[in-house]
Amino acid sequence: MQLDKFSGEGVRISPLAKIGNNVKIGDRTIIYDNVEIGDNTIICNDCVIGEPLNAYYFEGDKYENPKTVIGADSLIRSHAIIYAGNTMGDHFQTGHRVTVRENTVFGHHCSLGTFDDIQGHSEFGNYCRLHSNVHIGMHSTLGNFVFVYPYVVFTNDPTPPSDICVGPTVGDFSQVATGSILLPGVKIGQHCLVGACSSVTKDVPDYQLVVGVPAKVLKDVREIKDRETGEAHYPWPYRFSRNMPWNGMDFDEWCKLMNNNELVGWGRTQKVNS
Amino acid sequence: MQLDKFSGEGVRISPLAKIGNNVKIGDRTIIYDNVEIGDNTIICNDCVIGEPLNAYYFEGDKYENPKTVIGADSLIRSHAIIYAGNTMGDHFQTGHRVTVRENTVFGHHCSLGTFDDIQGHSEFGNYCRLHSNVHIGMHSTLGNFVFVYPYVVFTNDPTPPSDICVGPTVGDFSQVATGSILLPGVKIGQHCLVGACSSVTKDVPDYQLVVGVPAKVLKDVREIKDRETGEAHYPWPYRFSRNMPWNGMDFDEWCKLMNNNELVGWGRTQKVNS
Amino acid sequence: MQLDKFSGEGVRISPLAKIGNNVKIGDRTIIYDNVEIGDNTIICNDCVIGEPLNAYYFEGDKYENPKTVIGADSLIRSHAIIYAGNTMGDHFQTGHRVTVRENTVFGHHCSLGTFDDIQGHSEFGNYCRLHSNVHIGMHSTLGNFVFVYPYVVFTNDPTPPSDICVGPTVGDFSQVATGSILLPGVKIGQHCLVGACSSVTKDVPDYQLVVGVPAKVLKDVREIKDRETGEAHYPWPYRFSRNMPWNGMDFDEWCKLMNNNELVGWGRTQKVNS
Repeated sequence: MQLDKFSGEGVRISPLAKIGNNVKIGDRTIIYDNVEIGDNTIICNDCVIGEPLNAYYFEGDKYENPKTVIGADSLIRSHAIIYAGNTMGDHFQTGHRVTVRENTVFGHHCSLGTFDDIQGHSEFGNYCRLHSNVHIGMHSTLGNFVFVYPYVVFTNDPTPPSDICVGPTVGDFSQVATGSILLPGVKIGQHCLVGACSSVTKDVPDYQLVVGVPAKVLKDVREIKDRETGEAHYPWPYRFSRNMPWNGMDFDEWCKLMNNNELVGWGRTQKVNS
Repeated sequence: MQLDKFSGEGVRISPLAKIGNNVKIGDRTIIYDNVEIGDNTIICNDCVIGEPLNAYYFEGDKYENPKTVIGADSLIRSHAIIYAGNTMGDHFQTGHRVTVRENTVFGHHCSLGTFDDIQGHSEFGNYCRLHSNVHIGMHSTLGNFVFVYPYVVFTNDPTPPSDICVGPTVGDFSQVATGSILLPGVKIGQHCLVGACSSVTKDVPDYQLVVGVPAKVLKDVREIKDRETGEAHYPWPYRFSRNMPWNGMDFDEWCKLMNNNELVGWGRTQKVNS
Repeated sequence: MQLDKFSGEGVRISPLAKIGNNVKIGDRTIIYDNVEIGDNTIICNDCVIGEPLNAYYFEGDKYENPKTVIGADSLIRSHAIIYAGNTMGDHFQTGHRVTVRENTVFGHHCSLGTFDDIQGHSEFGNYCRLHSNVHIGMHSTLGNFVFVYPYVVFTNDPTPPSDICVGPTVGDFSQVATGSILLPGVKIGQHCLVGACSSVTKDVPDYQLVVGVPAKVLKDVREIKDRETGEAHYPWPYRFSRNMPWNGMDFDEWCKLMNNNELVGWGRTQKVNS
């Protein structure tokens, strides 16, 4: 490129921030107090990392910015606003213009899409993948390998407005398709699929496909056939491995190695001694 | 903070703008002609206040920017785009990246959430609270204490595309829950609750809970019980007072004082002579 | 205006970009390698044109930015992110904060709304008009004069997650109303209307109004009456001409002149020799 993405123009970094080795920081990006950025991470232009909390506006000199951790080998695209008090694991990725409020913990290998709005006080396991324009209300819990598609909303107030705040919980390997809404406090099991445009008002047991407003159980996901091959598509880890830690091996083999503690690395992608 | 949010870098302010006392303006924020900002207001980084209207691109030197008013004691978070010709009352608050088109009037103590998109030519009473990612089409009308939740859309064209533009009207104390759509011209009464994921196609009388696609009356909101206490939750002002002007007193008492003109201040929060 | 929108501050333009005559470029906007911008185009502040693809982060010096074309007489509002590898026709317009990923081709006179998120690898005919907050998944196809309203999502993965990617196709003059979702691979004919809040799971023949979750055929659009006049509103080109090429003449006359090749110009708006 004749025009470099990282000219250094307007970058501001707090003396209280800790920046790892081989980190790139885009133009006009600002890194506030007590941010720690892991090695080899790229933060693109016009980002705000460690955005001060509301208290900043009221406490004046007494305000102290909570610690913020961005893992190693991450890629945060332009115009992200990540509040102070968050912890992102390694290999964290985002699209453009994401907003992540305080006190959220992400595992490793998580990715957020453009326009995602994470309201804070939530937990994500490893390998969660949120597509564009997902809204995660406060106090939500996502397991590992949870995929969420565009325009999904996790809600948390059962009788609005109130001071109650109970977010949804989604189990490992489950997916929430485009335009669906999870009502406050619902618990979705493992390997579930919430069909597009659904409103989930009740708990969903493992392996169920639910659809509709309100969502009802339609069938077991293991009965869903692949459109092209006619074979069972779910549980999806047997059919899909792109960027997943079992890429290059059978999913059953990966599970077995995991159970026997024969895999190492944050993503559990490498065999011990391999 | 060792790194201050307000370094002054790249701030541009028109000589025709009027800035109140004790106002803070964030980096790279631009304040165009004929903007008035009230005392003690904070405008964060990368905002545009008084964005020129479309005519600016075509009229050249003849273009004159309409007056824009941002009330006192307001807090506008980063990356807001507020067009010229708007009037915001005092104690106006926003999340990040809001867009407000021209000729919209907000009462006092209104708040907008991150990604809200207000299309202009609309009216808001006092204490309206819009959560993230709400879209208000042109010519909408919201009363006082109207709460709108994420991914709600107010529409205005009954036979698209057409030159007709009739927005919805929502009465005092009513709420529109996540993911609902109000069709053009619908009138929602006072103290109503539109359930999540609904499409409101017909007018809704006072105190009704409506749900569904299309939305139907389910019950009177006064029959809804609080999940934890089992008591009636609505009308909600008896149960919820955070940031409301009746905070610290009984709602009936506040109503009585209001009716007797015994309260003062924009928010009607203080007793006369207290 | 006493404060000009185009001060030139922070503008960065690659030496490999080609900028037409009478082009305005807003503050802090960046134009990357191999971007071509047509005459009389306005690009507002804080835009990124020709954003490098993912490969940029991994290929280092070997990376070459694909060609990006922005047509003449276009107006791109602030904070747009347009990836490299896109082609926009003449008279292209956008609201604020649009994102357009790579390998998308737009015809002439297309417009995008604020917050639109175009995922790339898609095709748009002429005179497509997307309102705010529309999400177009990869491999979508839109004909000419297609109107899409807020919070509509075009999806493309029939059995998520998978490596299959088949976007929807929408025919000429069809419209998709607010909050609707088109499921992967659906084909919508010409002059159709998808009602608000619908989920389109099956193909829709020409001239049909479909509504619901899942969407069902309700009637022929030619049976829909205008609310005010009581006359048929569809096919809409007989009733609506604002910014359309048949503005100032009868739609039948325009069609006849089109069929006889008696119109010239990208927008086919002028009679030959007139």
